[in-house]
Amino acid sequence: VFQAQVLYDFTAEPGNNELTVKEGETITITNPNIGGGWIEAQNSRGEIGLVPEDYIEVKQKIAVAPAPSVGNVAAPDLSFFDAYAPASTPAQNQASNGNDPWSVWNADPSGGSSNNWASNPEGTQTGKSAAPDPWASVSHGHPQAYQGPGRKSLWNDGVSFPDTGQRTSNYFFSPLNRFPGFSKSGPELYLLCKQLAKGKDRLPIYMGEVGPVWFYPETQLDCVVADPKKGSKMYGLKSYIEYQITPNTTNRPVNHRYKHFDWLYERLLDKFGSAIPIPSLPDKQVTGRFEEEFIKMRMERLQGWMTRMCRHPVVSNSEVFQLFLSYKDEKDWKTGKRKAEKDETVGVMIFSTIEPEASDLDPVEVEQKCEQFSRFTKAMDDGVKEILTVGHEHWKRCTGPLPKEYQRIGKAFQNLSSVFTSSGYQGESTLTDALTAAGKTYEEIAQLVAEQPRKDLHFLMETNNEYKGLLGCFPDTIGVHKAAIDKVKEGDKLVATSKITPQEKVTMAKRLSTMSYALQAEMNHFHSNRIYDYNRVMQLYLEEQVKFYETIAEKLRQAHSQFTTM
Amino acid sequence: VFQAQVLYDFTAEPGNNELTVKEGETITITNPNIGGGWIEAQNSRGEIGLVPEDYIEVKQKIAVAPAPSVGNVAAPDLSFFDAYAPASTPAQNQASNGNDPWSVWNADPSGGSSNNWASNPEGTQTGKSAAPDPWASVSHGHPQAYQGPGRKSLWNDGVSFPDTGQRTSNYFFSPLNRFPGFSKSGPELYLLCKQLAKGKDRLPIYMGEVGPVWFYPETQLDCVVADPKKGSKMYGLKSYIEYQITPNTTNRPVNHRYKHFDWLYERLLDKFGSAIPIPSLPDKQVTGRFEEEFIKMRMERLQGWMTRMCRHPVVSNSEVFQLFLSYKDEKDWKTGKRKAEKDETVGVMIFSTIEPEASDLDPVEVEQKCEQFSRFTKAMDDGVKEILTVGHEHWKRCTGPLPKEYQRIGKAFQNLSSVFTSSGYQGESTLTDALTAAGKTYEEIAQLVAEQPRKDLHFLMETNNEYKGLLGCFPDTIGVHKAAIDKVKEGDKLVATSKITPQEKVTMAKRLSTMSYALQAEMNHFHSNRIYDYNRVMQLYLEEQVKFYETIAEKLRQAHSQFTTM
Repeated sequence: VFQAQVLYDFTAEPGNNELTVKEGETITITNPNIGGGWIEAQNSRGEIGLVPEDYIEVKQKIAVAPAPSVGNVAAPDLSFFDAYAPASTPAQNQASNGNDPWSVWNADPSGGSSNNWASNPEGTQTGKSAAPDPWASVSHGHPQAYQGPGRKSLWNDGVSFPDTGQRTSNYFFSPLNRFPGFSKSGPELYLLCKQLAKGKDRLPIYMGEVGPVWFYPETQLDCVVADPKKGSKMYGLKSYIEYQITPNTTNRPVNHRYKHFDWLYERLLDKFGSAIPIPSLPDKQVTGRFEEEFIKMRMERLQGWMTRMCRHPVVSNSEVFQLFLSYKDEKDWKTGKRKAEKDETVGVMIFSTIEPEASDLDPVEVEQKCEQFSRFTKAMDDGVKEILTVGHEHWKRCTGPLPKEYQRIGKAFQNLSSVFTSSGYQGESTLTDALTAAGKTYEEIAQLVAEQPRKDLHFLMETNNEYKGLLGCFPDTIGVHKAAIDKVKEGDKLVATSKITPQEKVTMAKRLSTMSYALQAEMNHFHSNRIYDYNRVMQLYLEEQVKFYETIAEKLRQAHSQFTTM
Repeated sequence: VFQAQVLYDFTAEPGNNELTVKEGETITITNPNIGGGWIEAQNSRGEIGLVPEDYIEVKQKIAVAPAPSVGNVAAPDLSFFDAYAPASTPAQNQASNGNDPWSVWNADPSGGSSNNWASNPEGTQTGKSAAPDPWASVSHGHPQAYQGPGRKSLWNDGVSFPDTGQRTSNYFFSPLNRFPGFSKSGPELYLLCKQLAKGKDRLPIYMGEVGPVWFYPETQLDCVVADPKKGSKMYGLKSYIEYQITPNTTNRPVNHRYKHFDWLYERLLDKFGSAIPIPSLPDKQVTGRFEEEFIKMRMERLQGWMTRMCRHPVVSNSEVFQLFLSYKDEKDWKTGKRKAEKDETVGVMIFSTIEPEASDLDPVEVEQKCEQFSRFTKAMDDGVKEILTVGHEHWKRCTGPLPKEYQRIGKAFQNLSSVFTSSGYQGESTLTDALTAAGKTYEEIAQLVAEQPRKDLHFLMETNNEYKGLLGCFPDTIGVHKAAIDKVKEGDKLVATSKITPQEKVTMAKRLSTMSYALQAEMNHFHSNRIYDYNRVMQLYLEEQVKFYETIAEKLRQAHSQFTTM
């Protein structure tokens, strides 16, 4: 018998074969192989149902085995680890917020899995005490000891979980510590590495008009995420959604479930996270997974995520990303997966593959650039959140009280028209007809107002939400950089105390320069995308806004024309 | 020291500088010149605050002199008696309601002085227990003994006040009993009057296309109320506003203070109130009387009131109204005033001057018509109040949260633009300029939204407010009619018990027919005005609404054009 202790409260969604469990409760695992992040368990009252894996801690028998590697498809329990956020169900939030899709991320304090910022909800929205500020570790003028970009250091909330220090050995890692291989390895690993392997995956950095830039391919990779299909396994016990992804290179669709996206995300984060902000996937959600609206929304966001990855010259050109988009068959996929999981050029070692064409940078300049990027990304993070907050409020007003008010105005006009009709006075049908029409017009306006956010605010919010996620990765990326700067600053002292040789000190400065080129290339990539994205989304927004107000004006003009001119 | 005895309990409105006093209490008047129907007084506990003048009786020094007549301009302290509703001050309401002028009447439970409906605030607005329903006395199927149209019968709230039965003798009349000469006289006075005086002021009723109609003059009287000027008396201690009224007949301006309008109103109510709904004057207000905004508003409403009176063929043609509009000099005015105050054809006796050209109506038809008008005016009263309620809410939203939201959207765009400008990345000024412009556009929209209600909702509200006042007079007018119907129904019984002669019974039925013709003529007048007014106000409203939305669309179009097309 496999027993497990429940770590967090979980409330079953009715009709979903789920089991409600309480923190501290002991349950018996009746089927550990459900997949999709679920196990089947039985409680002390004999009730059986599904429970999210990461809400429980296994007590015996399936305790941590020294398994070969995380993500190995051969290991049957890996699907087990889709981390579902232990938060309020999005379906409930949607209901109370006029179908505002942003109520999900606004109300969800644990947000996107790897996104530090997502975990830091707007104070104005929740009124809860602020989460630890991930920017604190990169605050200006007060350099702190770098703790590594992993979650643990940023979410020191007293929850203890196994940390064997070895990336692939802890199966039951908490959702707060999803990247065991990525944490702990500070930039020293790269800065002081004896010998950099000369591999084939070189990442050159060129000097462009705007400064250091990545190598951009001639044709930009792109893909379409479409055609979500429901599949099932375990004799229909659990079902899932499979998406069809078609890259513009092969034009041949491949199928992936959400958990494959998640696998890709973890690979990219492992490999590039120190140099390139890898935005987290759209929120995973425990409930409502087969609700049409939700699937559409998730698909739209997966599309947004894939598009952003495709646009990135380094990410899109990587072997693992290419594998994901264009594997030939199951065998190809499995082989590729295994290879990707064995990739050792991960974490800060990614810098060892970077080759700037320009000469080494002065550490002072490196530090200045770093400070500038830190300030900018923090400021933009604030700006983006402000837009999300006001947009969220606007959404609520446009779908809640405002259309209700227009409806009431419309009804009031129509009611008055009915009263007038009952007057018994002759020849006022022109007035009453016009008054009724005016009333109906305001009811139509109510509808327009309520529908409008989906037409314009939606894209503005989605884009800013994406940027919020992206910007949430910068504290990690910049943190690695800051730690490297601090290490190099210690150079003389380290030499004096014979911790490193004078040659190693020189190497460290050179490698820091490489890191800075990478950071600058990445910032330039970010800026150019940002300009494109915001130009585009603002145009879309204003276009739809113009149409909206013109439509209303036209409707009112028609209503006006029905009254007799005097 | 001026001392006064409190006649009725008065409960201070918090935050209004008012003083709670009890019936029988002696207070010291610390400032008798507050104006607007208030004095400042100190109680025995040393507390100082405002008390309504007509709640107290002065004991010495400024005790009431045996002045010749109410409203006589020679009586220096008559301004003292402007009955201001002892309610919350409008200035405060304005402040908390985004300068919504309707917050005044919506929040003021004692409303317009003679307007029963105005005293019956929307339950939805105040949440207070409902005031006695004046429509109750004209409810269908449950005829009640007619108690007269005066306030007392309708506001039988246990407050006793002096009623000398003589119209002009009680100076300290309560605001609840403003028309002592008008109450008490039921329709019997007319129905059973031995001899109807044959005066010169005959009021013919013709049969028009729509039924009985008043005699309409060829050119309609009209006047302009303008040029409010501040005057003062009592060595500047008391100041007042004088308005210039110019009728289209003489084209010669005359000056009148508000209290003269009030005098006119009372004369018209006395004389025509039983047959013609005389809407009350715009609310008197204690505070802000010299505030520009308030003067403008009052003038606008006095203009509205005068226009409505001018439009009424009976009222506009009356001697007292003509006197008001075109007195030649002070002497002419004083003589005319005295004559008007001595007019004995008041109350129900107005019916004695009405001469229908058509044959007598059947009592059954009379009752049907009466029921129909009662139903209609009640229904319209509901409809008008609904518009006022939603309009009031819309006003608050448009001047409060909505522009704040647009402002915040505008600021958020501009803030993001500032952040972008700080990026250090080259060539994004097109985006940042456009983003700033878009932000400013939303700030402009905020302003447009906040200003819009004054441009369109204002007139819609004013018109409906006027109609609310007008409709509030119908319970009285219809009540007289109902009482007459009931009296005629009693005819046989009265003859059987020798209370009246058979001839008197016939006379009563004939006179009831005359009353019905008057009511029908008045309803037809009301309907034709209503159709005109609502057609006009809806056109104005929709016109301005169209302009509003077009302006916003145009502004957004310009903002949109600043982004680069891609």
